[in-house]
Amino acid sequence: MNGARALIETLANAGVELCLANPGTSEMHLVQALDQVPKMRSVLALFEGVCTGAADGYGRMTGKPAATLLHLGPGLANGIANLHNARKAGTPIINLVGNHPQFHMGYDAPLTSDIDTLARNFSCWIKSCSTADTLAQDGAEAYTATLRATPGSQGQISTLILGADAAWGDSPGVAKANGIPRRAVVDAANVEAVAQALESGEKCVVVLEHDGATAASLELAGRISAKTGCRIMTGTFPARIDGGAGSTAVERMPYFPEHILASLEGVRHLILVGGQIPASFFAYQTTPSRLVPEGCEVHTLARIEEDANNALQQLSERLAADQATPARFERADLSIPNGDMNTRNMLQVIAATLPENVIVATDSGAGNAAHPVCQTAAPNTWLSLTGGSIGQGSPVATGAALACPDRRVLALLGDGGAAYTIQSLWTQAREQLNVTTVIFANRKYNILNIEYGRLGVTDVGPIAASLFDIGNPDIDWEMLSKSMGVPSATANTAEEFARLLQRSYQEPGPFLIQAMC
Amino acid sequence: MNGARALIETLANAGVELCLANPGTSEMHLVQALDQVPKMRSVLALFEGVCTGAADGYGRMTGKPAATLLHLGPGLANGIANLHNARKAGTPIINLVGNHPQFHMGYDAPLTSDIDTLARNFSCWIKSCSTADTLAQDGAEAYTATLRATPGSQGQISTLILGADAAWGDSPGVAKANGIPRRAVVDAANVEAVAQALESGEKCVVVLEHDGATAASLELAGRISAKTGCRIMTGTFPARIDGGAGSTAVERMPYFPEHILASLEGVRHLILVGGQIPASFFAYQTTPSRLVPEGCEVHTLARIEEDANNALQQLSERLAADQATPARFERADLSIPNGDMNTRNMLQVIAATLPENVIVATDSGAGNAAHPVCQTAAPNTWLSLTGGSIGQGSPVATGAALACPDRRVLALLGDGGAAYTIQSLWTQAREQLNVTTVIFANRKYNILNIEYGRLGVTDVGPIAASLFDIGNPDIDWEMLSKSMGVPSATANTAEEFARLLQRSYQEPGPFLIQAMC
Repeated sequence: MNGARALIETLANAGVELCLANPGTSEMHLVQALDQVPKMRSVLALFEGVCTGAADGYGRMTGKPAATLLHLGPGLANGIANLHNARKAGTPIINLVGNHPQFHMGYDAPLTSDIDTLARNFSCWIKSCSTADTLAQDGAEAYTATLRATPGSQGQISTLILGADAAWGDSPGVAKANGIPRRAVVDAANVEAVAQALESGEKCVVVLEHDGATAASLELAGRISAKTGCRIMTGTFPARIDGGAGSTAVERMPYFPEHILASLEGVRHLILVGGQIPASFFAYQTTPSRLVPEGCEVHTLARIEEDANNALQQLSERLAADQATPARFERADLSIPNGDMNTRNMLQVIAATLPENVIVATDSGAGNAAHPVCQTAAPNTWLSLTGGSIGQGSPVATGAALACPDRRVLALLGDGGAAYTIQSLWTQAREQLNVTTVIFANRKYNILNIEYGRLGVTDVGPIAASLFDIGNPDIDWEMLSKSMGVPSATANTAEEFARLLQRSYQEPGPFLIQAMC
Repeated sequence: MNGARALIETLANAGVELCLANPGTSEMHLVQALDQVPKMRSVLALFEGVCTGAADGYGRMTGKPAATLLHLGPGLANGIANLHNARKAGTPIINLVGNHPQFHMGYDAPLTSDIDTLARNFSCWIKSCSTADTLAQDGAEAYTATLRATPGSQGQISTLILGADAAWGDSPGVAKANGIPRRAVVDAANVEAVAQALESGEKCVVVLEHDGATAASLELAGRISAKTGCRIMTGTFPARIDGGAGSTAVERMPYFPEHILASLEGVRHLILVGGQIPASFFAYQTTPSRLVPEGCEVHTLARIEEDANNALQQLSERLAADQATPARFERADLSIPNGDMNTRNMLQVIAATLPENVIVATDSGAGNAAHPVCQTAAPNTWLSLTGGSIGQGSPVATGAALACPDRRVLALLGDGGAAYTIQSLWTQAREQLNVTTVIFANRKYNILNIEYGRLGVTDVGPIAASLFDIGNPDIDWEMLSKSMGVPSATANTAEEFARLLQRSYQEPGPFLIQAMC
């Protein structure tokens, strides 16, 4: 057995079920191993940002790492933007990056570059000196590392950079899986301090993120809120929230800093569960970066790497909140509106037609705007843009569909973001994934128009305007989708939009709707 | 004047004529400055790999750096694969990467990451601590650094990572351009040693790369060859070669290591001018990495960072070769073949229809195969894939067309490579660039089938086969092109292919041909 085969079998035995691949010549022995180990499913993407984004979507839905298979430094580089998003989501991922053997590095062949340095931007675990002897064990370590919560992360990205000689050389065989790491339990004193704040009678907001924002954690937080009257809130862009009718009612932090400050006005205790102090997404000259009202005390119940769910359990017991009944989102009687594709109509159509247990992936403004109205619609899982790098929605939707073949996935994409990683559609077509993609075709980077105005620039010159405008020419998304094998249609009215969404939910496989707005 | 304006004016004054941009919120002041300084042309791309690849194409054609404008770490990451190719080409480029201000970094906002680390993979000059006071001067330094040849590079990539506060703060004003660095002249003793080898009567091969492979350098090498009988050869993937009828006849190094060794059999002196010792593109178990025949002495006339042209001048004088007449490629009477789109017919069609002074950009096997036959066709400039990262041909073609609006550009792309950076087409449509794109639609990563066979694997299993196959579904390139605003057609026969090429050469603006093969 060569190193490649031992590695792939080790990972498959540990529980890696999926490899998102875009291999090259230096990874041929790994391809051979994937061919020999069919229990790890191999899925090809035509661009590495699709591989890494899909691994993120898969990891958010399963809690387990998928593997990626990438071709040296440039292949890894193409995947970094979505690895950045995955890092901010705390998603476990194992990157397998092929490399030249050490004996070849000194010749500076065209594909030679410093891959370790690239990996350092997003990885918590890197190894690049494997031999055929160590490769399988290195794979076992890489797997464990993805599930080890460390300061700043609840799960993480391992990058195993392996020379072709480690893959082709003789291996001592498959390595045993390590134990699964456990999160640290928070101290009772910490819980007590938070409990006293909640009992103080002063205005409290509990901010729930990562392990503090799972369905089970939100349920506990809902009881605590019912018992003490505190507000509960998720971050602006949670990696995953299970919501919709019947789920715990929870606020969501706004986007712009002035809106966050307004929302927190008068709050005396800000209690962090699994996340960080609220901060502005971007820096401005006129608003602060740290978004905590004056006179407000910040308490950390659980850091991102700690067991936030256990902390909420301890807190609920301490407050005797276990019998309290959380407020829940209720299903509204949503009708399909008539007429124009204005934002209000579009969002209402999405909510009114939302299928049961849908997974929504979005990296667009309109997609985020759909979240509140969908809380009164069918139960759903919402996957947001965690790291601010657009081009994530479509790959994440692809990975979520690979993880959950029995659930429909709805990708709500801006046209600007969709253009980054449009190759996702091809993988959706090949694998016949149940993904409905909506492209909000407004023909602009609309957020930049807004941000430019916030600078106080009221007169947008022609060059600036051209850099915010992605019309001229207009992309025909319906045609683009068909060219990659995904059937598609265009919605010009709310009724058409509803009909197309409903049709897509009833038919297996991918479908794309160009929503003219 | 704020820092952003001072920076952009400084760069424009130094000679930066083009900015390839994909900005975000942290770059709004730079957008405002671009709006105010129209003499630097701003061109939008929908994906950063198009920006960096186009900067590479522009730099190869002009010898001058273009600027890119990129959005924090993820925006830079998306551009790295083509920056890797540009680094191997020795192309000067200035990356302007927006960042949060220092005061915002500690809050770990979603787009925060270690950008310096990413930049280290490909940059020879990095600065990330600019203030509004220093920004314009830092821009002047970044410009100079791109033109400074350093060990391993004949030109280089500068990355200026600038906090938004440096852009929005008050600047002392525009900075003066520095002097342009000059290359080191090689020592006469070095020239003498090479001259003696060439006069030894033993078999000699001169390998010409980078500054040793400009039209002027090839002319000198051709005289030396005519005088001494040595063979002259370019590298396998030169950044730029001016060739075709009337240009100096020069061999091109083959791709596979066994072919390089066969080509160099019996050679006693290998003379390097502007390049490196021939090495295998990938490492194999059965062939060496260093491709120098036994008993062959390696001489370095000029290293990549030295003045190779001057070295060849010195050598030509020492050998009294100035009056010798180089062998030249002659125009063949190329007829348009009939029938199938087999490789031989396709290449002959390309050569037979080649317009005068065309620029050819290619990152595909078929594109490379077209090079020899095009040497007997119209004069042309050939831009190859220097760093092995596919997805480079279309962006480089875009940048070459921006640099040379009076010349037709022909992009010869594999379907696998084209899928990486297909967003180039949109920029070509917006800017109405004179680019003819040919997609060799063979529906596979064909090189991987070949390389897999070279491993001795004769039986390709279904999983491996699926990872080399980019059919299922077939991408409809004609439709994809139209969806991005580039008119297109499909060629099913050699006659159709010729007719479509000729039509595209006669009409301004971009055109795409799906070549079914």
